This record gives sequence, structure tokens and C-alpha cells, in this order.
Amino acid sequence: MDRSIALLTDFGLSDPYVGVMKAVMARINPAVRLIDLTHAIPAQNVRQAAFTLLRTYRYFAPGTIFLVVVDPGVGGARKAIAVQVGDYIFVGPDNGVLSYALSEFENPTVVELTNPDYQLEAISNTFHGRDIFAPAAAHLSAGVPISAFGPPVERIAQQLNPNLKINADQITGQVIYADHFGNLITSIGEFQWRDGNRLELLPRLGRPLVSPMVLAADTLSITVNDQTVTGVRRIYGEAKKGDVVALVDSGGYLEIAVNQGSAAIHLQVSAGAPVVLQIG
Amino acid sequence: MDRSIALLTDFGLSDPYVGVMKAVMARINPAVRLIDLTHAIPAQNVRQAAFTLLRTYRYFAPGTIFLVVVDPGVGGARKAIAVQVGDYIFVGPDNGVLSYALSEFENPTVVELTNPDYQLEAISNTFHGRDIFAPAAAHLSAGVPISAFGPPVERIAQQLNPNLKINADQITGQVIYADHFGNLITSIGEFQWRDGNRLELLPRLGRPLVSPMVLAADTLSITVNDQTVTGVRRIYGEAKKGDVVALVDSGGYLEIAVNQGSAAIHLQVSAGAPVVLQIG
Amino acid sequence: MDRSIALLTDFGLSDPYVGVMKAVMARINPAVRLIDLTHAIPAQNVRQAAFTLLRTYRYFAPGTIFLVVVDPGVGGARKAIAVQVGDYIFVGPDNGVLSYALSEFENPTVVELTNPDYQLEAISNTFHGRDIFAPAAAHLSAGVPISAFGPPVERIAQQLNPNLKINADQITGQVIYADHFGNLITSIGEFQWRDGNRLELLPRLGRPLVSPMVLAADTLSITVNDQTVTGVRRIYGEAKKGDVVALVDSGGYLEIAVNQGSAAIHLQVSAGAPVVLQIG
Repeated sequence: MDRSIALLTDFGLSDPYVGVMKAVMARINPAVRLIDLTHAIPAQNVRQAAFTLLRTYRYFAPGTIFLVVVDPGVGGARKAIAVQVGDYIFVGPDNGVLSYALSEFENPTVVELTNPDYQLEAISNTFHGRDIFAPAAAHLSAGVPISAFGPPVERIAQQLNPNLKINADQITGQVIYADHFGNLITSIGEFQWRDGNRLELLPRLGRPLVSPMVLAADTLSITVNDQTVTGVRRIYGEAKKGDVVALVDSGGYLEIAVNQGSAAIHLQVSAGAPVVLQIG
Repeated sequence: MDRSIALLTDFGLSDPYVGVMKAVMARINPAVRLIDLTHAIPAQNVRQAAFTLLRTYRYFAPGTIFLVVVDPGVGGARKAIAVQVGDYIFVGPDNGVLSYALSEFENPTVVELTNPDYQLEAISNTFHGRDIFAPAAAHLSAGVPISAFGPPVERIAQQLNPNLKINADQITGQVIYADHFGNLITSIGEFQWRDGNRLELLPRLGRPLVSPMVLAADTLSITVNDQTVTGVRRIYGEAKKGDVVALVDSGGYLEIAVNQGSAAIHLQVSAGAPVVLQIG
Repeated sequence: MDRSIALLTDFGLSDPYVGVMKAVMARINPAVRLIDLTHAIPAQNVRQAAFTLLRTYRYFAPGTIFLVVVDPGVGGARKAIAVQVGDYIFVGPDNGVLSYALSEFENPTVVELTNPDYQLEAISNTFHGRDIFAPAAAHLSAGVPISAFGPPVERIAQQLNPNLKINADQITGQVIYADHFGNLITSIGEFQWRDGNRLELLPRLGRPLVSPMVLAADTLSITVNDQTVTGVRRIYGEAKKGDVVALVDSGGYLEIAVNQGSAAIHLQVSAGAPVVLQIG
């Protein structure tokens, strides 16, 4: 089984923090493969990290270990945990950052990372990524069983509010973030295209619908910052260059974009803005 | 033969897009080596990506696969292609982004990436990097022959205008981009230093000169944004700190710099600005 | 012995420079592991690079080769060197960038990188990272002995002033840089926590104290930009959200932070600002 480690943090790449975590892991397991998911989560934005993990973990090979360090409470009371579930292992602080992804699984094995044999000798108060989380991920990748890291944990931190409300005629959510292209990624989903013009809504984040909800894509209207666009389209090119267009993004969520432009700039919208999808 | 994959995109590193492409590739070929060329091509700037590829591909080991995703037309009519030529394979959209590099080779084998066996199961409309291009590169790196990916392509997209005009007394080009240090990288080249003060011009991009053109470096004058500097120098240190200096950059093209400063700020110049090199 | 290469440069990631250096190294030694320490040292800031190397090298496995390219004098008179010392090898320009780390070792073996067998065929005047330093690091990682690269060097460039003055009642230093979170990293250290409230000062950078200096952490006061905070704390959470707090950072140096905020913005401080730690 592949034991790659995927890294997701808010450390940025301007400091040596990520490089030092990699050094620590390569020292423990020289053969390990490291894959940067992203280090550009806004500082201490636990929800965006949780959402990013939810949208991406399933593209990684079975056996992957996710090292998730967005940790505003470092050095405080929150636990450091590892969670084995399905084909994956997740390592991070117990502050909800793992909760969106974990909501898709049942019967997780959760332990608190307390065994000093699998930590650096000196533990700082401000950089548990280096001293506790990275060593744990590396030892896990080398085959140490999760039970060796510490005692079982019964309850992990509550799931964060995913900002998604589904009614028969209206779905409300919010802009989670604007990506590098200025595309607005929202919490409304997950959608899958069906034949013709039909969009099926399959909400995740622990909110299963009793019966599937199938929508006529061209009758939907989407409102953000007092501007409304009608219809959900399949590709950017269905809008004219510079026009606003709503799509299903590559992770299955509603995306608001400008063809060959930036919706974030065009609509003057940033993370947290409410989004309303009107049905019919 | 080494089968590394070099990545060149406009995805940036603030989103998880590059990380997910790497996950997809590592899942298909766990042994593959991935090298980031850059992900900071300005959004949808096909020409800068083409120029960057031209200037850098030859430093990679024979056998390298270049995964080039700058793709404003994603989901539309442009083809997804792979091109085997010389010791390399290039994978990307057929929008000209590969054309500068390909102009240096003859007799390419070109195929359209249509075989669903070498794509992800679900193909999004907005992220062919993940769904089509990355899987193709990974399967190529694992030894799948290029002919397996789809039908041959007869003609690929036209080469982009490289913005280079060569006359006996004057060469005109433009600033392609300002690098991280504020150095202005231009389309004027390719130059090689000869003995003493002589500079030989060896234009690439499909414009061979009938006879080589050898210039006296200290008699040249370079004008950009109404400011002129005389002479092409060998090192930054030939100018005083803070002074403008013209050099041959590390890729063989004319570079306009400020010693220990930023030419982009000093000269108030950005991408697209015309540059004139006066001979004699 | 592991022969990873750690990269530390001021090249940024917006240009292909780092990717090309990696291509060159992978071509010479396809099996080598590359770890990015950081490429975001401010352009030509030799001191910040030296300080970053000092604070991080010891987390890397024995055998690691550090490729350090912050090189304002590229193409000029400064030597290109490699230094073998302790379990490590350092490669870079002889401009002081290695000196803080080297001050922790004795009896280094230093050579000048002159042997053309271990350089690229064509040497540019502006990118020795690609043409000289990266090839040297890669050949070293493949087992070429350091003596093969060129003649011994007797004296290397003077150590940079570390901006640290220690008196019995006052220690003065400066802000080296603000990190990604806005935490101010200073030159005052290195500290280690002892039992209770005691902090031991163990200055590095070639300034050993005759006897150890143990301070009462809650009686210290720290002044930067005319603002004073009392006490050095163990964790961010000892301050209220938004309040200034002084800590020992993860590298052992005095850090001035704002709990869940940015000290750089809050205190309007940037690199170079004087910091005074008053004792008692």
C-alpha cells in the first residue's frame, strides 16, 4: 500500500516552516513521498482547510496520510490526533479541521498523539507541525500502527457549520473562497451533471437527502452581492468573454466565474459572502 | 530512460489544483518524479508559458514529459494533445502553448488524448489538467506508448507570434515579463557570447538566419519606455548599484536589469512594452 | 548516508529558475531527493538567508547537502564554494551566507568550485545557481568527493554582524523578519525553557557566554517601536486574542506576536527594527 504524505497547512511558502517539516519527515522515513496539497490556506482559517480537504482527499491513492496543520490553538488544550478511516489516515489538531472529510466515513479509529517515542525530543510551544504532527505522519508512513501513538479518543471536535441550507425552492450557502483565477468557490453542492440539462444535488457534509434532488440547470438563478445570473452552465465558454457565468466546479460545487476574467474583482465579492440559488 | 514529469501551469500555488494533479499522477505511477517548472504563469497567458517552455526544456533529462496546462479554452473545442519529438514528450492543450518549443524539432508524433482508459472516470468541464492531462502524463511516464492515447493529429495550432523582427540595423521585440527580481526578460535573442566583445545572434522560433550575425556588444543601444542604455554587458556588476544595465540573460535573451535593484520599477515597464536594439 | 539536497534561495517561485535548477540536479543524479527549505528570502538579503539556514539546518538528516543561492555578486569576484563540516555539506557563494551556520562547527573542509567537469558546459554570467552550484550539489549527492571540485580555500568571507549585544541588564537585537503570520522573528537568542519560569540564554553565532545566563521570564520586558510588553510567555494563548505577546519562537529566538493576529501590522514594524530586552 502506498504511504504517501499529503501536506495541507496555512504556513505559506515564504518561511522555512514547510521545508523543516519535510526535513523532519525525510529524516524519519527517507523513502516517503511528499505531496503538497496547498500551504496557502489563509492564516488560521480552519473552515477553508476543512473544505479543501473534503474536496480533494479522494484523488489521493489509498494509503495516503494527510498531514493537516491549521492550528490556531497550538500549545493550548486542543488535542493532537491521528484518525484511520477507510483507506486513509488523517493527522492534525482536533479543532474540526478534519471533520468535513471524516463526515464521509464511519467507524474511525482515533488516537491522541502522546507517545514521546514518535515526537521530536524537544517540543516547542508554537510549532507542533514540526515537533508532533510531522513526526507522527512520517512514522505512520514507515508502518508504525496507529495504536502505538497514544490512547484512543472517544469524541473528536464538533463538525464546523458548512453554511449550506437546502429547501425545496431555495438553497443558501456562502462563498468559501476566491481561487487564484478569481473564481468564487461556494459551499453549495455537491452537484453532478445528468443527461441533457439536468443537475443532481447530492449534499455531502453529513446531510443526506431522503430522495435525490434533480434540478433543471437553465431555470436556476444564482444571486451574490445583489447580482443575479440565470442558469448553471457546463463550460466557461458558454458565456461571452467578460460575462458572469455559474458552473459546477471541478469539485462538484457551485462556482461563479467570469469567462477569461475574475469574478472576485468583477462582482466585488470575497470569502463569506452569502450565495442564494433559486429553484424554478 | 528517465521518465520525469515537469509541470508548467498558470494554476498558482494558492489553490489545491497542482496538489490534486500530483495526487492523480502519483496514484497512476507511484515511482514517477515530479519537477515543478513553475505554476506562476499569469492566468491564461499562453504566450508567456510557451516562451518559458522554450527557454527551459533543454535543461531537463532526455525522456522528460512536460505537462503544460495553460488552457483558457478548457471544455471547449481545442484538442488535448501529446507530442513525442526528439527525446521529449509534451502534453497540453492544442492552443499554441507548445509551439515555440516544438518549432525546434522536426517530425513530431502528435496524438489527440481521447482514449478514456487513460483519463479519470469522471471528466469535469473545467479541470482537464486533473482529468485528462495529468493522467496522460502519468501513463506515459509508466511506459504506455503515445499511440495508445488516441488518433494521430495532422496539424497543431499555429505558432504564436514571437514578437521579434530582425533587420540589418535594428532588432525589435518586446518585454515578455518581469521576473521576481524586476529584471525585464525580452523576446530579443538568442545570443551567445564570443571572444572579446562580440555577441552572436542565433534567432530561434523558426527564424533561422542565412548567415550568422555577429554584433559588437559595446556599440549596441537598447531603448525601452523612451530610455536608452548603451552596450550589452556580461555581468550586473559592470553597472553601478542602482544603474540600468543590458545583459544576455541566462536563457540567451536580451535582459534589461538594474544592478541590485528592480528594472521593472525603475523603468516603469511591464509585459508587452516594445524594446528596440539599435545596431552600430 | 542520506544525500538529500536542501534548497535555500531568493529566486521566488514565480519564475522557472528553481525548476531549472531541479532539472539540472535530477539529470545528474536521478535518485536524489530535493527538499525546498524556502525560495522566498527577500531578493539579495544575504543576512536573512544566513539566519534562516542557522535556525533550520539541524533538522535535516546527516548527509544533507545545502544548496544556498542568495548571490548579489553573481558573475563577479566572489568565489563559489563547498564546505564539508560535521555531517553536512554547504554549497553557495562565498559572501557570508553560509557563515552563521558554519560558526557552529570547527575544522571545515572548504574548496572553490572550479572544476569544469562538475559544471554545465556553458556558464552564464547571471545564473550560477543553475550552471555551477546545482551541478556541484548534485555531483556531491552522487558521491563525488569534495576534493574533486577544486582547490582548498583558506579563508572564507567574514561572518555577518548578527545584531546581537548582550549585557548584564539588557540585550539588544533587531527584527530579522516578519513571518507569514506577521510574527516578528528577532536576533535575540538562543533561549531554552527551564523549569518553572526560568529561561536560559545560550547565544550562538560564535558568542559563547562564559557562564550560562538564566533569566526570570515574567520579569523581562521587551520594547519594539516604542511599545513595551512585559514577560516572555510559553504559548500564544497566554495573551488575549489581539494582544501582543513575547515568546520563544520555534527556533529558540525571541518572537513578538499577536495572538491570532499580525504583530507586523499591529506594531507597524518591519525587518531591521531595533528590539530591546530589559532584564529585571
